[in-house]
Amino acid sequence: MRMVDLIIDKREGKAHTREEINYIIREYTAGNIPDYQMSAWLMAVCWRGMTEREVSELTSAMMHSGDVVDLSDLPGVKVDKHSTGGVGDTTTLVIAPLVAACGGTVAKMSGRGLGHTGGTLDKLESVPGVCIEKNIDEFKDIVRRIGLCVIGQSGNLVPADKLMYALRDVTGTVESIPLIASSIMSKKLAAGTDAIVLDVKCGTGAFMHTPEQAKKLARTMVKIGDALGRKTVALITDMDQPLGMAVGNGLEVREAIEVLSGKIKEGDMLYEVCMLLAENMLRLSGLAEDDREARAKLTKAIETGAGLKKLEQMLTALGARDAKACIADPNTLCTVKKKVPVYLNGEGYITGMHAADIGNAAQKLGAGRAEKTDIIDPAVGLVMHKRRGDFVKAGEPVATMYVNDESRLEEAVKTLRGAIELGAEKPEHEPMVYDVIK
Amino acid sequence: MRMVDLIIDKREGKAHTREEINYIIREYTAGNIPDYQMSAWLMAVCWRGMTEREVSELTSAMMHSGDVVDLSDLPGVKVDKHSTGGVGDTTTLVIAPLVAACGGTVAKMSGRGLGHTGGTLDKLESVPGVCIEKNIDEFKDIVRRIGLCVIGQSGNLVPADKLMYALRDVTGTVESIPLIASSIMSKKLAAGTDAIVLDVKCGTGAFMHTPEQAKKLARTMVKIGDALGRKTVALITDMDQPLGMAVGNGLEVREAIEVLSGKIKEGDMLYEVCMLLAENMLRLSGLAEDDREARAKLTKAIETGAGLKKLEQMLTALGARDAKACIADPNTLCTVKKKVPVYLNGEGYITGMHAADIGNAAQKLGAGRAEKTDIIDPAVGLVMHKRRGDFVKAGEPVATMYVNDESRLEEAVKTLRGAIELGAEKPEHEPMVYDVIK
Repeated sequence: MRMVDLIIDKREGKAHTREEINYIIREYTAGNIPDYQMSAWLMAVCWRGMTEREVSELTSAMMHSGDVVDLSDLPGVKVDKHSTGGVGDTTTLVIAPLVAACGGTVAKMSGRGLGHTGGTLDKLESVPGVCIEKNIDEFKDIVRRIGLCVIGQSGNLVPADKLMYALRDVTGTVESIPLIASSIMSKKLAAGTDAIVLDVKCGTGAFMHTPEQAKKLARTMVKIGDALGRKTVALITDMDQPLGMAVGNGLEVREAIEVLSGKIKEGDMLYEVCMLLAENMLRLSGLAEDDREARAKLTKAIETGAGLKKLEQMLTALGARDAKACIADPNTLCTVKKKVPVYLNGEGYITGMHAADIGNAAQKLGAGRAEKTDIIDPAVGLVMHKRRGDFVKAGEPVATMYVNDESRLEEAVKTLRGAIELGAEKPEHEPMVYDVIK
Repeated sequence: MRMVDLIIDKREGKAHTREEINYIIREYTAGNIPDYQMSAWLMAVCWRGMTEREVSELTSAMMHSGDVVDLSDLPGVKVDKHSTGGVGDTTTLVIAPLVAACGGTVAKMSGRGLGHTGGTLDKLESVPGVCIEKNIDEFKDIVRRIGLCVIGQSGNLVPADKLMYALRDVTGTVESIPLIASSIMSKKLAAGTDAIVLDVKCGTGAFMHTPEQAKKLARTMVKIGDALGRKTVALITDMDQPLGMAVGNGLEVREAIEVLSGKIKEGDMLYEVCMLLAENMLRLSGLAEDDREARAKLTKAIETGAGLKKLEQMLTALGARDAKACIADPNTLCTVKKKVPVYLNGEGYITGMHAADIGNAAQKLGAGRAEKTDIIDPAVGLVMHKRRGDFVKAGEPVATMYVNDESRLEEAVKTLRGAIELGAEKPEHEPMVYDVIK
């Protein structure tokens, strides 16, 4: 088998065999296929796409390129949730505790990666004392004791994806549904869960800009899950504005605590998306017959404080110095030198928000990384006061920025203002959830 | 400017600016753009193509990546001919002397490259004593004295193409009209000619398999020539069988001598294609008003022996030990240990020939290189006795093989037999020339 022939096959639109796909992934990971051939092949995949069978086989080959976590000795159905990345998305910190409180088993490994704002790991680390680096045995021990744990990726999981992603990033081959789907699913599958609920974001703050693209990606991932024997469901949710009101690490932990403690209620977008995701997780875990039964259990876990207790237990297990105090007063997570209200020029309805730029505004304050080596300030960020469709009066702040380094403020405000469009007419209502792909 | 952004632009189908194209070629040639980015970009070009403007600008950028030969101090219009590569194509050795005999100036640099059989340089070197390695001053001196010279590429011409071609060869990005056209034209333009006649081959022995593809390539190259101020004409000629009857180096020189000496006459395919190419060269050189006048001059150059004399002069200028004797008896160029007739199984009309495989059969006898370092045997090869449409009787040889190493014979015969299809019906006539693009 010669890589150049496989590249030509793909550029001519042919489907690879399983052996060919295994060859490409195995030899590339081993360093026997040079980057210049791999990048040409990746571009040919962007061009010609892949069949369902090819994508599943690619995912399987990538999944087996390194360690595969074995969670089979943990009781129950291990369920995971994965979001394709949004702004103000603190769902994991809400639903992992809620599902565990309802009897589910949530054993989740998160990657770190670049982004507008920090990921779940950075949010967890905003709680003093928390360390997300655990080995597999510690991780499983925590899950066995309390029913949930979220840690950073441990071991040599999916080295093929690390190499391929680094190459795709510099060769313009990131945007490809087969490549995105196999990258996400190979990591989820290598992490050993039995069931996966995917939250595919769609809109200005997401990778997929239209519901059609997002549905296509969702369908591809659900089919991979089916082909490889994992129960998989995907939600297509709106990312034309931040999901929650808070954008920042400590700020988002505070918001998650507000949902778990019942302060943020039904009708709120973060609340509703969390419920929908958690309902599907309970269903896939076999802990609820249908969404209605699941919703009732979840609501009860909020009312009784069982969900909040699970979060406290997990933070403690991860090393939090005083999880109880932190949950009792989450404002300690976002204590900053200065809180600055942000005003827009003029007044009107918010007709559009560029969610990615709202994330960038928070990043400019220090809430996210521009470079891998940047250090995140856990307390900074912003809290929106308005959502899409709201009217903003003159002199009424649209957001509050949480600032420690005032030299970063001007740029951040400029970015935030540029991310919000005002208009005279109230915009049409957009759904929070476009679709559920089962 | 960042290469990754330019790759993304191209994969999204955008056209590059001149500055962007110059950046890509300059920085890649300088080693500042890595192969893995270049190959992804090349695949994106295969995918999305290029506008006419882009292709001209790419050609110009490549042409200026190294030395550009200045022939302006030579008298008259310097005219060159380029073929996209065929089997049994010895046209250069016929038309360069003929055009020079009619007063034209033919200053031609040839590349060597891999192929079924040797190129023009290998054919010239089959004449004892000939050395095609000359420096530019020697080259120009010969052209000034006798009106023509064909040498190997001298100096650092189009280093961008050398690098790009080597990369394309291993990354499945060879087949792309903008890339093929710019590769060919950048080398022709850097070689300093004023006018170019292109012979774009079409069929089983050529890179372009259909007349449509060949016309598209031809049109692209003619437009590049126009955009960069060179008079350019392209013929689309048939390569569904070898052009001449001889396939091999000395054998093809002998056949060229047979055309120049009037032994091969009107109606023969090699003769007709040579005439058509040479007519266009004379027209572009301003030495004939139209094809009819050009044909009359060319016919006269054959009848008077003026063309043959020019070939003799060139061979002498290139160091031939006894060009006169060689031309008087060209059989000395193809003296082999054994001549072996080749028979087919059964009888019938030749309904199809795979020209590339006929070239491969000659290569297997030692007439061409499989690897760059292979040494060519100038005397070996094959002479076809039949053409497409001819009837082959049982026991009638279809070709004769000129053999020095009998261990290579069996494979060569097998390849040749596999290249010829017999049928009960006489096939439809196919044109020798599909089109002329001016």
